[in-house]
Amino acid sequence: MQGLILKIDCPDQHGIVARIASYIADHEGNLIELSQFSDRADSKFFARVEIDTTNLKVSVEDFINGFITLGNSLSAKWHFRTLPYKMRTAVLVTKTDHCLNEILWRTQLGEMPIEITSIIGNRDTCKQIAQNAGIPFHHIEMDGDQKEEGFKKIRSILHEDKVELTVLARFMQILPDWFCQEFSGKVINIHHSFLPAFIGANPYRQAYERGVKLIGATCHYVTSELDGGPIIEQEVKRVQHFHTPQDLLRLGRDCERTALASGIRHHVHDRTIIHNNRAIVFPD
Amino acid sequence: MQGLILKIDCPDQHGIVARIASYIADHEGNLIELSQFSDRADSKFFARVEIDTTNLKVSVEDFINGFITLGNSLSAKWHFRTLPYKMRTAVLVTKTDHCLNEILWRTQLGEMPIEITSIIGNRDTCKQIAQNAGIPFHHIEMDGDQKEEGFKKIRSILHEDKVELTVLARFMQILPDWFCQEFSGKVINIHHSFLPAFIGANPYRQAYERGVKLIGATCHYVTSELDGGPIIEQEVKRVQHFHTPQDLLRLGRDCERTALASGIRHHVHDRTIIHNNRAIVFPD
Amino acid sequence: MQGLILKIDCPDQHGIVARIASYIADHEGNLIELSQFSDRADSKFFARVEIDTTNLKVSVEDFINGFITLGNSLSAKWHFRTLPYKMRTAVLVTKTDHCLNEILWRTQLGEMPIEITSIIGNRDTCKQIAQNAGIPFHHIEMDGDQKEEGFKKIRSILHEDKVELTVLARFMQILPDWFCQEFSGKVINIHHSFLPAFIGANPYRQAYERGVKLIGATCHYVTSELDGGPIIEQEVKRVQHFHTPQDLLRLGRDCERTALASGIRHHVHDRTIIHNNRAIVFPD
Amino acid sequence: MQGLILKIDCPDQHGIVARIASYIADHEGNLIELSQFSDRADSKFFARVEIDTTNLKVSVEDFINGFITLGNSLSAKWHFRTLPYKMRTAVLVTKTDHCLNEILWRTQLGEMPIEITSIIGNRDTCKQIAQNAGIPFHHIEMDGDQKEEGFKKIRSILHEDKVELTVLARFMQILPDWFCQEFSGKVINIHHSFLPAFIGANPYRQAYERGVKLIGATCHYVTSELDGGPIIEQEVKRVQHFHTPQDLLRLGRDCERTALASGIRHHVHDRTIIHNNRAIVFPD
Repeated sequence: MQGLILKIDCPDQHGIVARIASYIADHEGNLIELSQFSDRADSKFFARVEIDTTNLKVSVEDFINGFITLGNSLSAKWHFRTLPYKMRTAVLVTKTDHCLNEILWRTQLGEMPIEITSIIGNRDTCKQIAQNAGIPFHHIEMDGDQKEEGFKKIRSILHEDKVELTVLARFMQILPDWFCQEFSGKVINIHHSFLPAFIGANPYRQAYERGVKLIGATCHYVTSELDGGPIIEQEVKRVQHFHTPQDLLRLGRDCERTALASGIRHHVHDRTIIHNNRAIVFPD
Repeated sequence: MQGLILKIDCPDQHGIVARIASYIADHEGNLIELSQFSDRADSKFFARVEIDTTNLKVSVEDFINGFITLGNSLSAKWHFRTLPYKMRTAVLVTKTDHCLNEILWRTQLGEMPIEITSIIGNRDTCKQIAQNAGIPFHHIEMDGDQKEEGFKKIRSILHEDKVELTVLARFMQILPDWFCQEFSGKVINIHHSFLPAFIGANPYRQAYERGVKLIGATCHYVTSELDGGPIIEQEVKRVQHFHTPQDLLRLGRDCERTALASGIRHHVHDRTIIHNNRAIVFPD
Repeated sequence: MQGLILKIDCPDQHGIVARIASYIADHEGNLIELSQFSDRADSKFFARVEIDTTNLKVSVEDFINGFITLGNSLSAKWHFRTLPYKMRTAVLVTKTDHCLNEILWRTQLGEMPIEITSIIGNRDTCKQIAQNAGIPFHHIEMDGDQKEEGFKKIRSILHEDKVELTVLARFMQILPDWFCQEFSGKVINIHHSFLPAFIGANPYRQAYERGVKLIGATCHYVTSELDGGPIIEQEVKRVQHFHTPQDLLRLGRDCERTALASGIRHHVHDRTIIHNNRAIVFPD
Repeated sequence: MQGLILKIDCPDQHGIVARIASYIADHEGNLIELSQFSDRADSKFFARVEIDTTNLKVSVEDFINGFITLGNSLSAKWHFRTLPYKMRTAVLVTKTDHCLNEILWRTQLGEMPIEITSIIGNRDTCKQIAQNAGIPFHHIEMDGDQKEEGFKKIRSILHEDKVELTVLARFMQILPDWFCQEFSGKVINIHHSFLPAFIGANPYRQAYERGVKLIGATCHYVTSELDGGPIIEQEVKRVQHFHTPQDLLRLGRDCERTALASGIRHHVHDRTIIHNNRAIVFPD
């Protein structure tokens, strides 16, 4: 299908849906799917629209440019994406490979419209996996005082590769503020706990010691606040008293894989909108 | 809020959303929530729209009547409901009372906008519960050849009470065809299995014998086909080898209560549309 | 069934199960169910044994007394309970009644072997429910400086009624230290969040603001540390961006009811053993 | 750890646990974990015992042989397995590779103590995956009248490789009766529905047409009855009206992977005992 995804948010006001839908209909676009959400507390309107452009009576370019008048009159922020597409994605790893493998597997299967441009590791453990998958692997040392330099190298790679999405697939480094800000809304992390419980290091050990009966994983956007960004997806799994911290680690991997894959999927399908510190996720 | 819910389905065609949303905007209605679904296999369009009518520039009546032109031009079936409202509901029971109690409890708490006009039992076991809740109880004998007569009496009650929804809350009688047809789309049943597994009698015994590891309950619209109508909601619960059929019955009650309450909620909020033998459920 | 439940914990050592099981067999008791757990980190052994005493060749009393020698030789702590029994239980409430109703309903249905000796409220909102159920209701003022006195009155009631279990069914008061200590291991609370996230007041508001995608409830033993005691059971439910704090409150009620009922059930069946700050729960 | 797993079933009778535990203690074995289940309806006893043999005062061989007297006196069937071990496993596939990948991934990670001796396909689609993993791949044609011959070839491979477990990882062939009987209790299948619903071909299409709100996958032992053998594990996932059969297939893959991995894990840890058409699964 030739098409467009429109994501838009603006102050809530009278007749928004009518005006957007009419713009599409007037240009002979076919509205395939419309999801909207009004946050009444904030008087904000959010929508995601999928449009079939096969019979559009103008060019896709003109359609997109023509929207500016409407968008501005709504005081909106908006974004069009042309379908089909693949989101250019970098995956950052340390040693652990289960999240990386999950992403590769779902990509190869066509479950996620992404193109993995590079795998970047502060260890070289995952090099072989990258090579088997035919994806460039960059080993960037980040120990001690190499850290700042390391993140600058990563930034260069992301720019060179025109990366739109960076996935922290169990990447065991805290991102510097400037990095979080530069790539705001474009970095997804998987944290191995049911946030906001067990922020920081060794969450499975923390979970074991607290004696929780469910463990979890949280996929979220990265912000300057550690493990504090907008949550896209969470998964949990039941555990029992006889499970050791090692068992929790094993069982938690399944939550991590599922939550991360699902979070990435929502993002690359443009189904998420960040609103304050919360993520609107239009389901699919 | 003064408002309207519009449910509509029609052949899929160009510009439906634009036309509906514009109709609302043109009359100064405020679109609160729009859920739509296009079944591409069938080329059918379905939508549910919630409209704030506070600032409507015509009367609600004129707004509803004025829609006829648009509705007809779309070859649509549609339905308006005025908010706030309470759906007049009858609950049919036999002996078991947990589903009845759940409905009463959620109604009293204001979770579900329903008014229970009567509780009807082919046993009088639940009479006391009805009296405590201040709801008329009708004991209608249905054993042996009293069955046909019994269902006629129920029909009379439903008509007299202007009932819009009939809930079979563990009502242990198979409805006659004429009843299913007369009240098509207006009778909700809870079946104590994960349909389509274990249709008919003693599903927990069947589940035990099959050795399933998850048991369930299914809330569905009643049709002439036993346990075969459109499914609104399903719930499951994990079981183990040491659970007896009696345990499954106990554990299953929780699934039944949750699935039935959720199914009723979807229905009374006009969030369901029956399409062939499937139920579209716009989430809330 | 005439029977006994034995709960025992002791330092891990050679041959414990053999010695316990032999003691039972030697006295012609019939071992119905044996659950054991060895915490290797702590070298501690825990077990729960269910014994059919129908054919016991000594009196139950002698059987219990005779165990002292074995128990002492294992340096064990142990407890026998005679079956069938009903655990004498007090329920503490404030205004909210859904947890109270759930307990009453499951008790009446015979799901939980408890006898509710009294319902105690710092508001009188639940008085009518208590009266309908034929259970004494005590309204104890606890506002301002009446709090300490109030808890002393509660203690008196618990002692007079020979209460074994106190359930905080959405009781909106923090228990004083002396109360927690006196009734240690005998007070169960339901907290309306997925602990350890959102400790303290307004957890649903906290959950909303953090934008979690799953909300939960936690049933735990009460200790001096607020919401910090051993966790018995946790439940979660998926939520979405459009759910308001009010929706979370509604959805959370289902988690609370389920987790509390399940936690009480585990406790009254003597399936829990507190070990440090964790609860061992032998499943049923 | 040097150890043994004992699986045993016998008619229920007085003192079984005492006798087994005493046998272990008398030989200075250390009982690590004991799981037992008495099926009262059938008067049958089942147990799984894990024994640390480090301090055994006889050889492991003598310990195992010495058990014969006790086992026979209980009219038991029993089986000892020496720890650590890896179960020799063959994986049968057609084209679909997600279940195969999952098994390989979990094996490499050390989650499952198995050694994959061969991958056998009636298509050669998975050949590359096998080669990357360094596992022999056998392409065996089974179309048309090659089927019977094909299964004989598979039998030969299983015998030559001393395979203990055969996993049907989305293997699209119905096994002949003689094969099911010869390898009874040693063949595990993953069926892509929540059995017993949607037996046979195209279960996701069936599920779509029935309009279920949860789809599932079932891991079970293979018997002569199609999709009718003892169930080890089941997983479900929520679906909505807008999910196409293609979506169900995608979402179902996650259920299949999880249920199959979990089922295999239970089997290779000797945590399953088949009893009539049900599988006892001692949890871990």
